[in-house]
Amino acid sequence: MRIRVINPNTTESMTALIEASARAVAGPGVVVEAVTSSMGPASIESHYDEALAVPGILAVLRDADGYVLACFGDPGLDAAREVANGPVVGIAEAAMHAATLVGRGFSVVTTLSRTRGRAHDLAGRYAAAGACRGVHACDIPVLELESDPAARKEVVALARHALEHDDSDAIVLGCAGMAGFAAVASAELGVPVIDGVAAATLLVQSLITLGVRTSARGEYAPPPPKPYTGMLGDFARE
Amino acid sequence: MRIRVINPNTTESMTALIEASARAVAGPGVVVEAVTSSMGPASIESHYDEALAVPGILAVLRDADGYVLACFGDPGLDAAREVANGPVVGIAEAAMHAATLVGRGFSVVTTLSRTRGRAHDLAGRYAAAGACRGVHACDIPVLELESDPAARKEVVALARHALEHDDSDAIVLGCAGMAGFAAVASAELGVPVIDGVAAATLLVQSLITLGVRTSARGEYAPPPPKPYTGMLGDFARE
Amino acid sequence: MRIRVINPNTTESMTALIEASARAVAGPGVVVEAVTSSMGPASIESHYDEALAVPGILAVLRDADGYVLACFGDPGLDAAREVANGPVVGIAEAAMHAATLVGRGFSVVTTLSRTRGRAHDLAGRYAAAGACRGVHACDIPVLELESDPAARKEVVALARHALEHDDSDAIVLGCAGMAGFAAVASAELGVPVIDGVAAATLLVQSLITLGVRTSARGEYAPPPPKPYTGMLGDFARE
Amino acid sequence: MRIRVINPNTTESMTALIEASARAVAGPGVVVEAVTSSMGPASIESHYDEALAVPGILAVLRDADGYVLACFGDPGLDAAREVANGPVVGIAEAAMHAATLVGRGFSVVTTLSRTRGRAHDLAGRYAAAGACRGVHACDIPVLELESDPAARKEVVALARHALEHDDSDAIVLGCAGMAGFAAVASAELGVPVIDGVAAATLLVQSLITLGVRTSARGEYAPPPPKPYTGMLGDFARE
Amino acid sequence: MRIRVINPNTTESMTALIEASARAVAGPGVVVEAVTSSMGPASIESHYDEALAVPGILAVLRDADGYVLACFGDPGLDAAREVANGPVVGIAEAAMHAATLVGRGFSVVTTLSRTRGRAHDLAGRYAAAGACRGVHACDIPVLELESDPAARKEVVALARHALEHDDSDAIVLGCAGMAGFAAVASAELGVPVIDGVAAATLLVQSLITLGVRTSARGEYAPPPPKPYTGMLGDFARE
Amino acid sequence: MRIRVINPNTTESMTALIEASARAVAGPGVVVEAVTSSMGPASIESHYDEALAVPGILAVLRDADGYVLACFGDPGLDAAREVANGPVVGIAEAAMHAATLVGRGFSVVTTLSRTRGRAHDLAGRYAAAGACRGVHACDIPVLELESDPAARKEVVALARHALEHDDSDAIVLGCAGMAGFAAVASAELGVPVIDGVAAATLLVQSLITLGVRTSARGEYAPPPPKPYTGMLGDFARE
Repeated sequence: MRIRVINPNTTESMTALIEASARAVAGPGVVVEAVTSSMGPASIESHYDEALAVPGILAVLRDADGYVLACFGDPGLDAAREVANGPVVGIAEAAMHAATLVGRGFSVVTTLSRTRGRAHDLAGRYAAAGACRGVHACDIPVLELESDPAARKEVVALARHALEHDDSDAIVLGCAGMAGFAAVASAELGVPVIDGVAAATLLVQSLITLGVRTSARGEYAPPPPKPYTGMLGDFARE
Repeated sequence: MRIRVINPNTTESMTALIEASARAVAGPGVVVEAVTSSMGPASIESHYDEALAVPGILAVLRDADGYVLACFGDPGLDAAREVANGPVVGIAEAAMHAATLVGRGFSVVTTLSRTRGRAHDLAGRYAAAGACRGVHACDIPVLELESDPAARKEVVALARHALEHDDSDAIVLGCAGMAGFAAVASAELGVPVIDGVAAATLLVQSLITLGVRTSARGEYAPPPPKPYTGMLGDFARE
Repeated sequence: MRIRVINPNTTESMTALIEASARAVAGPGVVVEAVTSSMGPASIESHYDEALAVPGILAVLRDADGYVLACFGDPGLDAAREVANGPVVGIAEAAMHAATLVGRGFSVVTTLSRTRGRAHDLAGRYAAAGACRGVHACDIPVLELESDPAARKEVVALARHALEHDDSDAIVLGCAGMAGFAAVASAELGVPVIDGVAAATLLVQSLITLGVRTSARGEYAPPPPKPYTGMLGDFARE
Repeated sequence: MRIRVINPNTTESMTALIEASARAVAGPGVVVEAVTSSMGPASIESHYDEALAVPGILAVLRDADGYVLACFGDPGLDAAREVANGPVVGIAEAAMHAATLVGRGFSVVTTLSRTRGRAHDLAGRYAAAGACRGVHACDIPVLELESDPAARKEVVALARHALEHDDSDAIVLGCAGMAGFAAVASAELGVPVIDGVAAATLLVQSLITLGVRTSARGEYAPPPPKPYTGMLGDFARE
Repeated sequence: MRIRVINPNTTESMTALIEASARAVAGPGVVVEAVTSSMGPASIESHYDEALAVPGILAVLRDADGYVLACFGDPGLDAAREVANGPVVGIAEAAMHAATLVGRGFSVVTTLSRTRGRAHDLAGRYAAAGACRGVHACDIPVLELESDPAARKEVVALARHALEHDDSDAIVLGCAGMAGFAAVASAELGVPVIDGVAAATLLVQSLITLGVRTSARGEYAPPPPKPYTGMLGDFARE
Repeated sequence: MRIRVINPNTTESMTALIEASARAVAGPGVVVEAVTSSMGPASIESHYDEALAVPGILAVLRDADGYVLACFGDPGLDAAREVANGPVVGIAEAAMHAATLVGRGFSVVTTLSRTRGRAHDLAGRYAAAGACRGVHACDIPVLELESDPAARKEVVALARHALEHDDSDAIVLGCAGMAGFAAVASAELGVPVIDGVAAATLLVQSLITLGVRTSARGEYAPPPPKPYTGMLGDFARE
């Protein structure tokens, strides 16, 4: 079984981090390969960045049995499901669902304040009403999570605040760049802390094991073929 | 006042149709200009098409005081609001809102069955629960709406069915390519029939008249600048 | 085109204020006339006041192509739609919708605390879940908004608090008596501030331009004729 | 203990029917008096009728320990609660709640099709989502329920259809004029059939027995006194 | 008429308290009998306790015309409705509904923090969205409510805090063990304070008076007979 | 790693079927053991059965690293989470979640009509609004699924009907007794068909691999110790 984990931004060092998180949980015999997008933003911190990360994702949805979208906005998830040859899971949906299996209400800790709305939208899509009790931002830019040694401490402190403020009992890490924080944060906070990269990798592995893939009935059927022009001409499908 | 109406697909003849619909309602002294996307799909009939229509939209969000996104999926609306210099309105949101002002529950009539899910998602975002009572597809491809002389009749027949089936009292036309059908359909059906292109043009005009534009507080503030690479390198903002 | 803006209370000075707000935005050739109710409460600050303002509204729904209900409780809106000869828009619905076009979540600032429940009810009717993030009261009686020179400052201060507390990005003015505050408040707060009187006037104008009026199919069809007796005998319709 | 049951329309024969239903269930020592509105519509079959029935209700909210509003639209309920000296219960809220105590999902059978929207709105206010599974109209005018001997049969047939169509397990009678149908309909259908007049009378009796009345904290506190003018001048309160 | 009030825990002194509350409101000629469960937990303070209180409830659902479940978790309510020979009402549902008849939004005050989630779940089942504005815990164990003379003061203080914090206008007592607090608390707080035991007793009495009982159509029909084995073998029904 | 799959009814042959389904998907090195409840109903087909299946579940929650509750009602899930030493997953929640990963809207096919309400309740708890588009019953008793050779055909036919009627794109098998049908049904229907036993086994395995278990903060903390009496005395915990 082969799982491709897609880093939708163009920053290689983050891909390495994501790959490590995915490999740490994959079952024996599962080949995990992380790939970096070849076009678009260096990090995803706005709707604009997210929209422009999608072509790069769609360009690498191949050569595996299932796919993980390793950005907490789950960019292009519906489009990816239409064209991928195997199941596609976003890390926000994976993390939020895992959190509902081990607690009654979770808090999300994320990077920039401006991205909280997107997290709320995704919670509205993936989880029953009330399961997501709050979204909190540390206002550390995505690419500083790695480089700033204090970042993990700030994220843990924010999570502690979130548990109190939201009366929640589990934490969802709201950025692929936080993938390395889960174990330590959980130990320090005494509650489940979910890294979506690991959770999504296991979900894709499970779906492949179950033998189920995206339904080709209705909305996720392969898109009708048609001309594509201009810079995006190569995205035309037959 | 200058309003740019963006056709997110690359089909020029559809742009002309859209422009006519917008110009027919714009106030005196309002300059309406419709533009065709320079890249991406010839029509938008899947999540894949929609995602790949967004770069073309973002590339032409300039040279006006306000913008209409003339595709019923309202593609890239959040991203467009972050970067446009004036208000941005999607035709789905404009049409759905207009329908709630003249009725208690509307039906959407759209093109392909596979796009109904997107219409339901948008209704969930724009309208109070229950306002959208149904979404019905005629399964005529977008670009055949113009060329097929029977298309309008089929759309009207579908709308008649929808009014009965959904117990609705207004019709929302679920495709920019249906812009020319509103007046005749309304006359035949005896209920309000809303063309989103006209409705959105008037909403943008109204917002400019009110002197309000997209909030720069929080989520819609200009995105943080950062490197963009590869084919999408020119989308980097300062 | 002729638009009648109805002040549902009996205070003439407030009518003048409302008329000014509506006229400031109406298009060329649009005749705006504001009328004062001839019966009922001097201001609307309770469910009791609101219920008893409705007959006065229903008595003046004539002599125009469209109507604005200029009280933030949108009193009698459903009844007005049944009997008016053109579109009817309430200022709460107009303001709330405009706010959703320029932001992700709005706060309402209103007069008396006791009216907040009504504002929440209307948000539940007009806007998708979560769009209205809070309703805040300054506890200045309606008729003191005009006479008290400090009122505008208090309203702006309350709006500033609301933006922080609710994490909102737009302000809806929750009383027709605040119509004059929008421009200054927006300048001071740096976010869109919506005056429902102006917003509703432009919506009515837009609906007339679109050629759509209230659906006569189903719930808003003209009411069945019947005897009316007692003091309200003149409200019988044929 | 004294309970006043208010018939919000002006038709005396309907008041007698309502009074009989209320008296049949009231406890020993409870005085039930039904009163007919002295102004407004002869029956309530539109938003217009309902709005104009409210002044007549507010004029007779006195001389008892608790009040029943005996029209299925629960007209003026919020206003009545602000000014009444004892608890006020509407027959729609009473019937819908009773139905949820004896079943998992109820259907409403009502008179005119145009009133179904109001029934849905009330279900949204009183009951948890999903409790009301459908609203069905027999399209018999309110005042013909009494006079037309076939009416009861039609209502029962409609209820039988509703149980099947909605997969419901209880019936709510959606008009005070159906008060006399409950026992027979229940016997014929084999499910609980709720008459709101009887249910509301018992709820008011229960609230008085519990010693609780409408909260004077916040929204339902007595309205601020103010001038009332014109035909409605006598409604001013001190 | 005979009403059985079931104390689902095994503590006799609490049964006496519950019986007093029920008898204080029952009508003339109504025989109220409270019974103590013969098996399971001494108090109900967890999902585990609640689940294990259900067999004891199901064992005593006989010998009356209607039943009250006197634990605020409404344990086993659906199961009880399937097998009881008369209506069954839980005290949470009774109290929450009564609160909505006399106010716009209530707060629940309960015992242990860990039970708040259950109260929210029940509010989601019984009341329309937004009616329950908060659930607050005093963290006094259930069985200390009786023995600790300071308990009532703490509960009242918590209720006062809840009214402010939640902007609510009525209080629901979230434990059968608080049944004796309602009158004093209401007097001190100046708002309606609802004891579910009394409220449920009157609802059961009302349902019996109305002649309605649990629907035997569909979900609440008598369960299919089948073998039961092991310790629970006596629960088999024919 | 050791996973215990609990059959909450007392029928051994069904346990064997469940065990086979779980073992077929478990990873290398994972020990799967299915256990049969030692007390309670032979099958679970009512709220009554479900309530009385819970003690038997709680009695066997030991000797493993994680637990699957193999009845589609997810009986006793909250209670089990409070006391188990590892993660606990119900088959309804596992199946519904898996369905949302591969489609936009699923239908449930289940056994008896009377259990549909429970399935809807669970969908409301586990899935976002709208994800569950329908619940359909074949009205074959649980224990006949195995013995009746025509059962699988009927279930597949019902699923085909559900896909059309609900406009859904995935099927959730609504009974543990259908575990063996998934592969064939999926092949025949051409859409994903989810067996909750397999899905839940993989979720428990994934949670253990992730190193997360039920939060001990708040609602799912170990229950307070207390006396248990009567037949259930042995359930007391220290």
